Amino acid sequence: MKTYRNELWFETRSRREMINITPQVGECLQASGIRDGLLLCNAMHITASVFINDDESGLHQDFEEWLEGLAPEKPYSRYRHNGFEDNGDAHLKRTIMGREVVVAVTDGKLDLGPWEQIFYGEFDGMRKKRVLVKIIGA
Amino acid sequence: MKTYRNELWFETRSRREMINITPQVGECLQASGIRDGLLLCNAMHITASVFINDDESGLHQDFEEWLEGLAPEKPYSRYRHNGFEDNGDAHLKRTIMGREVVVAVTDGKLDLGPWEQIFYGEFDGMRKKRVLVKIIGA
Amino acid sequence: MKTYRNELWFETRSRREMINITPQVGECLQASGIRDGLLLCNAMHITASVFINDDESGLHQDFEEWLEGLAPEKPYSRYRHNGFEDNGDAHLKRTIMGREVVVAVTDGKLDLGPWEQIFYGEFDGMRKKRVLVKIIGA
Repeated sequence: MKTYRNELWFETRSRREMINITPQVGECLQASGIRDGLLLCNAMHITASVFINDDESGLHQDFEEWLEGLAPEKPYSRYRHNGFEDNGDAHLKRTIMGREVVVAVTDGKLDLGPWEQIFYGEFDGMRKKRVLVKIIGA
Repeated sequence: MKTYRNELWFETRSRREMINITPQVGECLQASGIRDGLLLCNAMHITASVFINDDESGLHQDFEEWLEGLAPEKPYSRYRHNGFEDNGDAHLKRTIMGREVVVAVTDGKLDLGPWEQIFYGEFDGMRKKRVLVKIIGA
Repeated sequence: MKTYRNELWFETRSRREMINITPQVGECLQASGIRDGLLLCNAMHITASVFINDDESGLHQDFEEWLEGLAPEKPYSRYRHNGFEDNGDAHLKRTIMGREVVVAVTDGKLDLGPWEQIFYGEFDGMRKKRVLVKIIGA
C-alpha cells in the first residue's frame, strides 16, 4: 500500500470565494504515483469547505446568495460565537457545503463524472489557510 | 490490497426521486471479494446525491417538502444558473443531501447500523445518470 | 494492509447534545497501531451525526438555534414521519450536519487542522446509540 500527503495553501482576496482546485489535486495524484485507491481532500480549517460541483459562475453566485439567506453574515451580534470573532456565519456556511470529499482513483486519474470539479470554498478568507490531500492505494 | 470499481445507472420517471440502492451496492461488495476495507459510493452527477437515511416513505415526503422550502424549483428565473438550464435548485438540493457516503466493510458485509440504508437521491431526473462504487481493502 | 474496527457508545441526558469525541477516536487510532491511512468515523443511527468543527460553546448554541430554525422540532404534526415517532426533525438536522467524517492518518496521528475537533451530534437522544470507527492503512 502506498500513501501520499500534501497541503495546498490559499489566501483569498475577499471574505468569500470559490476556487477550482481540480488541477492542483490532480497534480498531487500524479506526484503520488498511485494508480488505484481513494483520495481524501479536506479543508483543514473550520470556516472553509472542499466540495464538488459545477464550474459555472452563475451557480457560484446562486450558492453565495443561498448561503447568505440560510446563514447571514450580519448583524454579527446574531451569533453567540461572535464574541471576539465575526465569523459565526462562516462556520454554518461551511457546514452546508461540507468539509471534505472522497474521490476514487482509477488508472492513475481522478475518477470524476463529466461535470464534477473539486472546489475550495472560503467563507472567512484574506488569510493563509490550508487544504489537505491524502491518497492511499497501490 | 484489492480494489473494485463499478457504475450503477439510473433513469427516474420523475424529476425528483429517492431510490434505495443498498441491495445493488451490496452486490458490488460481494462481487469484489473484499472482506475488510472502505467503500465509497458517490453520485457522478452534480444534481444528484448518494446519502444514508431511513427507508420510510413519510420521511422521504418530508425530505421533498423540506428541500423545496430551502431551495424551491420555481420560479426558474430565481437562479442565475438557469440561463440555458432549469436545474439550479437541483444543485442546491443535492448540496444539502450530500454527494457521497463512505461505508466500512467488515466480514465481507456493509457495516451499517440497524436502520441505515443507502439512497440515490435524484433532483433532476428523467435522463440516464450514474453512481460510482469504489471499494478498497483486503 | 491493516484494518481496525470499534464502536463508541453514547447515551445523552438531553434530546440534543454535541460531544467532543476526538480523544476517544484518537485512542482507537493508537490501539489500531496504524501509522498511515484513512479513518472513517460515522454515526450508526440516522438521527445522529459525526462532524468536525470548533470546540466552542457559543458556536454550539448557534448550531442549536440555526438547526431549530431550519428544521423545527415542533409541532410534531409538521412531519409525515411522525406517525409513531416524534423525531422527524432529527433526521433533517442530522442531514445538515452530516453522517460521517473521513480523517487522514499520518505518523500514527489524526491529521487534523489546528482547530478541527470531531463531534458526535445527537438529535434524538436519551437512549443508547453508537458511532463506528474504521481505520485502514499500514
